[in-house]
Amino acid sequence: MNDSTAGSQMAEGIREQPTALARLLGQGRSDVVAAAELVASRAPRFVSLVARGTSDHAALYAKYLIEIGLGLPCGLASPSTVGLFHAPLRDANDVLVVAVSQSGHSPDLVAYAQAWRERGATVVSVVNDPTSPLAQASDACIDVRAGEEVAVAATKTFTSELLALWMLVSAWAGRSLDAAAALPGLVSNLSASPDAISEVADRYRFADRVILTGRGYAYPVAREGALKMMETSYLAAHAFSGADLLHGPIAMVDTSTPVLVVAPSGIGADSLRPTVAELRDRSIDVVAIGNGLGDVATASVDLPDLPEELAPIAAAIPLQWLAWQLAVDRGSDPDRPRALRKVTRTR
Amino acid sequence: MNDSTAGSQMAEGIREQPTALARLLGQGRSDVVAAAELVASRAPRFVSLVARGTSDHAALYAKYLIEIGLGLPCGLASPSTVGLFHAPLRDANDVLVVAVSQSGHSPDLVAYAQAWRERGATVVSVVNDPTSPLAQASDACIDVRAGEEVAVAATKTFTSELLALWMLVSAWAGRSLDAAAALPGLVSNLSASPDAISEVADRYRFADRVILTGRGYAYPVAREGALKMMETSYLAAHAFSGADLLHGPIAMVDTSTPVLVVAPSGIGADSLRPTVAELRDRSIDVVAIGNGLGDVATASVDLPDLPEELAPIAAAIPLQWLAWQLAVDRGSDPDRPRALRKVTRTR
Repeated sequence: MNDSTAGSQMAEGIREQPTALARLLGQGRSDVVAAAELVASRAPRFVSLVARGTSDHAALYAKYLIEIGLGLPCGLASPSTVGLFHAPLRDANDVLVVAVSQSGHSPDLVAYAQAWRERGATVVSVVNDPTSPLAQASDACIDVRAGEEVAVAATKTFTSELLALWMLVSAWAGRSLDAAAALPGLVSNLSASPDAISEVADRYRFADRVILTGRGYAYPVAREGALKMMETSYLAAHAFSGADLLHGPIAMVDTSTPVLVVAPSGIGADSLRPTVAELRDRSIDVVAIGNGLGDVATASVDLPDLPEELAPIAAAIPLQWLAWQLAVDRGSDPDRPRALRKVTRTR
Repeated sequence: MNDSTAGSQMAEGIREQPTALARLLGQGRSDVVAAAELVASRAPRFVSLVARGTSDHAALYAKYLIEIGLGLPCGLASPSTVGLFHAPLRDANDVLVVAVSQSGHSPDLVAYAQAWRERGATVVSVVNDPTSPLAQASDACIDVRAGEEVAVAATKTFTSELLALWMLVSAWAGRSLDAAAALPGLVSNLSASPDAISEVADRYRFADRVILTGRGYAYPVAREGALKMMETSYLAAHAFSGADLLHGPIAMVDTSTPVLVVAPSGIGADSLRPTVAELRDRSIDVVAIGNGLGDVATASVDLPDLPEELAPIAAAIPLQWLAWQLAVDRGSDPDRPRALRKVTRTR
């Protein structure tokens, strides 16, 4: 595939993921350890995560890691409270701000990090450009080292952000990073080609809507999968947590609406079993990403065996290929989505 | 309209809003003052808001009120971290949990509130049933006094939750509640009939998708409007904050996709002006709910003159009627959405 082929940039980003993840685990480790030591020494009581778009889904993954792994209350920031509404921030020596951004350039994120840091908060940035304004506004910077991402639709920077955040929280909690050592090798087949999702892409050829769901660590990947499908193939893709789906949106699901359940084995997948069974009773097509619900879903896409915390990094990859394949099959160029630029600067 | 007419229960709920809001401002005031005094005496450093579905949108509104009005970091809880994943919670004398639920019965919310309270957190519940398990699990309860809500699609309990949360934050901040005194009267015309949105409903008669957006205090109402349309008329309704819309989803918007901008006058509306202008340049239909963007939008629905903080309560009402009208026009019964029950008990 050469550069002039539709979607070649996005495909290249997807394929580079094992290499990028291995580089982060190796060369990136010292950044992570330094950031974790700083954070541990400050002993924050509360974490505010700030990000936009794809990086916001990585931030949501970190929220689960921090709440479950450390028992700390944690929130996703609404940057406009600072940038637009000029909130009078309280003193913040007990606050950790984690800012996640591929480019590190969005003015609202920089303003948010700076405003809290001026009040005493510790700021850690997770970026793909350690010279960016966001990196410079932080006390510690983790460079995810994904390499330049040419494609408009972020892929390798997303999985690298997920891994960087997993490494940060693990190191902060004093746990070993060894559980991730096998990750790059385990995702190499998934990354190499869209083969694993080609049947699902055929099945969705004429779908106009799709609903994604997941629980716990996997829910942010359902959100990111929906965003990828919206931006590359223009599907009306919704994502809901498995619980929120039942609080209203499930009414929208009918037999013409496929449901994708991001369900690696584990607690999250088990909790979704009754929902999947209910959908199947209504003759709704349910594809599971992962092995946890293969017995009840209409079809499923295998994932490598990983701890539940790390499995979302693998689960993201078939959803990237699915978005790519649907766009290509429908005659769109995933590298040239309508109305998008690579770096979005919001205020 | 009698009880056997499609949507009569939802319509009745919409019409009762001025009465319900006035009752909360009068009879409900003592609950609010007592809760605010308790909260102020505990001086929390962080607020965790926990809710599901429609009430989650009220919680998101409270997040903006707390962050902007009090400068406190604040997060929306993921209840599964406690209920499913058994997070080892830190001691929490400095944490306020605000739990919002119409029924007060969802087991995941009760478990979340109880777990944090056992660690020392202060718990305030905002419910429509002061005898519910959630009310009993809290240190202070605000009964929103909306009266029994028969309709499956929540309307009056949503606006009552918004007002209760505005009253709580205002009283906690030591501010007067007088700004809301005129609210019930000001929304009486909007509540009485779908007239204000009948032209928009005609315009959307054959739409399959709709995108809602808003910024700041108004964004949660865009989320709730989308949920109402999903659950009553089965549209693929998406809501994004004005900033997040530009980070990807805007690619999905084409001339067959109407955009609804929740934009009462103020900072939020002003910040959306460039986005609306860009959409209009692409020949996209943009309807503004509110007076802030009437000059650039394709059409707009007038709202009464209210402070930016309170305006979302008024803005919610035409969106409720729009969901109702679209369902009725398409032959659905908004009182009998597919696959939904009034009280959803998630774990």
